[in-house]
Amino acid sequence: MELNCDLGESFGNFQSGNDQAIIPYVDAVNIACGFHAGDVSTMQATVKLAKKHHVHIGAHPGFPDLQGFGRRKMELNESEVYGIVLYQIGALAAFARAEDTKIHHVKPHGALYNMACQNQSIAHAIARAVYDYNPDLILYGLANSLLTKAGEDVGLHVAHEVFADRTYQPDGTLTPRSEENAVIDNIETSLAQVELIMKEQCVITTGGNKINIKADTICVHSDTPEALEYVRRLKVLSERNREK
Amino acid sequence: MELNCDLGESFGNFQSGNDQAIIPYVDAVNIACGFHAGDVSTMQATVKLAKKHHVHIGAHPGFPDLQGFGRRKMELNESEVYGIVLYQIGALAAFARAEDTKIHHVKPHGALYNMACQNQSIAHAIARAVYDYNPDLILYGLANSLLTKAGEDVGLHVAHEVFADRTYQPDGTLTPRSEENAVIDNIETSLAQVELIMKEQCVITTGGNKINIKADTICVHSDTPEALEYVRRLKVLSERNREK
Amino acid sequence: MELNCDLGESFGNFQSGNDQAIIPYVDAVNIACGFHAGDVSTMQATVKLAKKHHVHIGAHPGFPDLQGFGRRKMELNESEVYGIVLYQIGALAAFARAEDTKIHHVKPHGALYNMACQNQSIAHAIARAVYDYNPDLILYGLANSLLTKAGEDVGLHVAHEVFADRTYQPDGTLTPRSEENAVIDNIETSLAQVELIMKEQCVITTGGNKINIKADTICVHSDTPEALEYVRRLKVLSERNREK
Amino acid sequence: MELNCDLGESFGNFQSGNDQAIIPYVDAVNIACGFHAGDVSTMQATVKLAKKHHVHIGAHPGFPDLQGFGRRKMELNESEVYGIVLYQIGALAAFARAEDTKIHHVKPHGALYNMACQNQSIAHAIARAVYDYNPDLILYGLANSLLTKAGEDVGLHVAHEVFADRTYQPDGTLTPRSEENAVIDNIETSLAQVELIMKEQCVITTGGNKINIKADTICVHSDTPEALEYVRRLKVLSERNREK
Repeated sequence: MELNCDLGESFGNFQSGNDQAIIPYVDAVNIACGFHAGDVSTMQATVKLAKKHHVHIGAHPGFPDLQGFGRRKMELNESEVYGIVLYQIGALAAFARAEDTKIHHVKPHGALYNMACQNQSIAHAIARAVYDYNPDLILYGLANSLLTKAGEDVGLHVAHEVFADRTYQPDGTLTPRSEENAVIDNIETSLAQVELIMKEQCVITTGGNKINIKADTICVHSDTPEALEYVRRLKVLSERNREK
Repeated sequence: MELNCDLGESFGNFQSGNDQAIIPYVDAVNIACGFHAGDVSTMQATVKLAKKHHVHIGAHPGFPDLQGFGRRKMELNESEVYGIVLYQIGALAAFARAEDTKIHHVKPHGALYNMACQNQSIAHAIARAVYDYNPDLILYGLANSLLTKAGEDVGLHVAHEVFADRTYQPDGTLTPRSEENAVIDNIETSLAQVELIMKEQCVITTGGNKINIKADTICVHSDTPEALEYVRRLKVLSERNREK
Repeated sequence: MELNCDLGESFGNFQSGNDQAIIPYVDAVNIACGFHAGDVSTMQATVKLAKKHHVHIGAHPGFPDLQGFGRRKMELNESEVYGIVLYQIGALAAFARAEDTKIHHVKPHGALYNMACQNQSIAHAIARAVYDYNPDLILYGLANSLLTKAGEDVGLHVAHEVFADRTYQPDGTLTPRSEENAVIDNIETSLAQVELIMKEQCVITTGGNKINIKADTICVHSDTPEALEYVRRLKVLSERNREK
Repeated sequence: MELNCDLGESFGNFQSGNDQAIIPYVDAVNIACGFHAGDVSTMQATVKLAKKHHVHIGAHPGFPDLQGFGRRKMELNESEVYGIVLYQIGALAAFARAEDTKIHHVKPHGALYNMACQNQSIAHAIARAVYDYNPDLILYGLANSLLTKAGEDVGLHVAHEVFADRTYQPDGTLTPRSEENAVIDNIETSLAQVELIMKEQCVITTGGNKINIKADTICVHSDTPEALEYVRRLKVLSERNREK
């Protein structure tokens, strides 16, 4: 099971995350592209860092909402969604190109991700933007969501993503961050959720029911105090699982 | 002599320019990339328009200053200049790619252009960004300036640009827009300037002296009321000149 | 019946509207505050213009979304809505103060206005921001909506607004701009709607039914080609009505 | 001698500074107004915090450059400088007003501050904006600079500011942050500089010469790791000095 992590979320003078420390433990990174975080210097530095550590580089496009960190829903039409995704992919790809490397995948960020998982029109706009840029890119999306489905529909390879530190609602969607129980802050609980996904391909939702979940990649976060310890243990778990 | 024109300078609800009308008369267009003008929908529409009219597509990166339309000097360091140029090239190139076409050149906009013509460090940062994105791109810059020189230094092809409707200072730089006599608003005077450039490769500066000027491309503007009539006559002049 | 008009919607190099021509025909203006339109120079110029013409000056706060002109829904929480409204009122009031005049009212713009008409929490946040800035300000909102109700609830004077050139849905809300029949572009139809409001205090909705509507002020737009002729005739109508 | 500190420099998800810890040790705070830092929620929270601690509230307007944290020079004309300062004062004053308090002073931020200290036109534009908003506001500026002089010229009270942790150039201006020796990171050296200012009203410049300096207020920073310990000792020093 691959570990992926959102990186490059600083902006100018505002430092965020713990990129240098966490990158040795992950396989793929999703780099902010300037709309919700990630100024041009951060983008360049993060691409260099990713190349140095031989991890997969992904574009992490979000809504044009720096103040809300791309976590506030915005009602863009399908054409606007297509445009902001294509724009941000191109911008990040330019930094990869300048470092003689390439982007490997695209994973929408925050509210754009969440809306795409539940809205076919948004999902389709994103999938088309990725495909039109490069049909070989992999679209990362919530496992079993409308987003991964849209990716498959346009002919992309997709990676079904699960979240180590987020709870799931009975319908399989992530609990929104506005709700109290959205984030699992207990490491043991979170690792148990991951282990269940690895072993039995399922999660226990906030409703108590078990749902099947297909998982290609696990998202871990770098912006919490205990992220580092957490991702270390997750890596151990993931490698142990691979050996089996 | 090629005619080039800045296009795609609308932003969201704010309409600017007369793109549809002017594009039949020019050979190359410089498309705003979102920092000083040009939202994603405008970028997409303008790339489509340019492709349809078989004109060369150029990226037109500017300072991140929508309110100032990229015309206000900003003191960015070399690394930041490199970053904003690379970012904007990539963003525009993505729209070209999605339309199965390519960008052909890069021309910095407004204050970034002017500063680069007179500042070696800025000129070099821009040239490196263009080269690192794609060494086959052509860098458009003021004829005989530090910008075109920097392009040649890093190994790029450059296009020496002259301005039909701007006056030149005795040292060969453009008169800044803040000065009263910066813009030539009389069509006959402007056409006479172009004719002199075509025939004798020189211009008469605001100081009254004649200076030699190397010209590969002429910049025309689309955002003035008389732009259309003007560019029509310029095209006639340019074609007549080619025939000779 | 008062006529009010959105003004000061230019932004930097981007010119919008026909402010000078239209202001003689209206009684109150709503001035953009920089978030969806209106740079600082435009704000200053528009306040001066309004003072010169002795019209009521209103703040016209919108979502922080220049590209979408504040017309795209954004999911801000109540505290954020309170903050952006208070911020923008203060900013505009500063320009009024510098010209030795005062703001008279506040009217939310675009998607913020529409959302507030139908969402109690947003309406309340706006009303509180206005009241906390100055309880003597008048809150302009859609007639009989949650927005005017929230204003009354916090203790503000409110102005019930009707739209001359927008259609109404059967439930009394404005037809969203995303729908085809949102705008009445026929002047006669529009004037007929206004006359019905003045004489019988009602409108005919898109569903064909008549609904009662309380009207203190009529909103006219300045950004359409025929705005000027339209507002002239509206003023005649309005004055004729007053005489009766 | 008063201690003042820049506060409220977070932006949305990006946390900055150590406001809660440092505020008990200072007498006046300069609150970011949204252009270089400080979203609306941060502005509101910081005004509340300042009111609770009975410190003087100041507006801290900067250039519209979030990525550069307002530290990059921008070439705005006098009217634009006037506009951005007036706008930001008004915005912050609105939050003060909503908390039943008032702003006491205005201190420009970053590059705007530095440029104003050396450019009469910018200094004058700032001073006029402050005066036009409220002639009772105090303008904080570098001691003996064109900024404080402009304030006095328009009829404002000014506070001559000295910097505890910044070095001075032989001409009395601050060493720009782009230079290596701009910041004094040794606490003892910094305290010695403050003590010399308090006792002898002079500083030793980077050139080694002693220059007279008039000081009403000392600027301390909250965004360095050792800021807290530093400001504690500075307060002790300042109080000891007052007793004498």
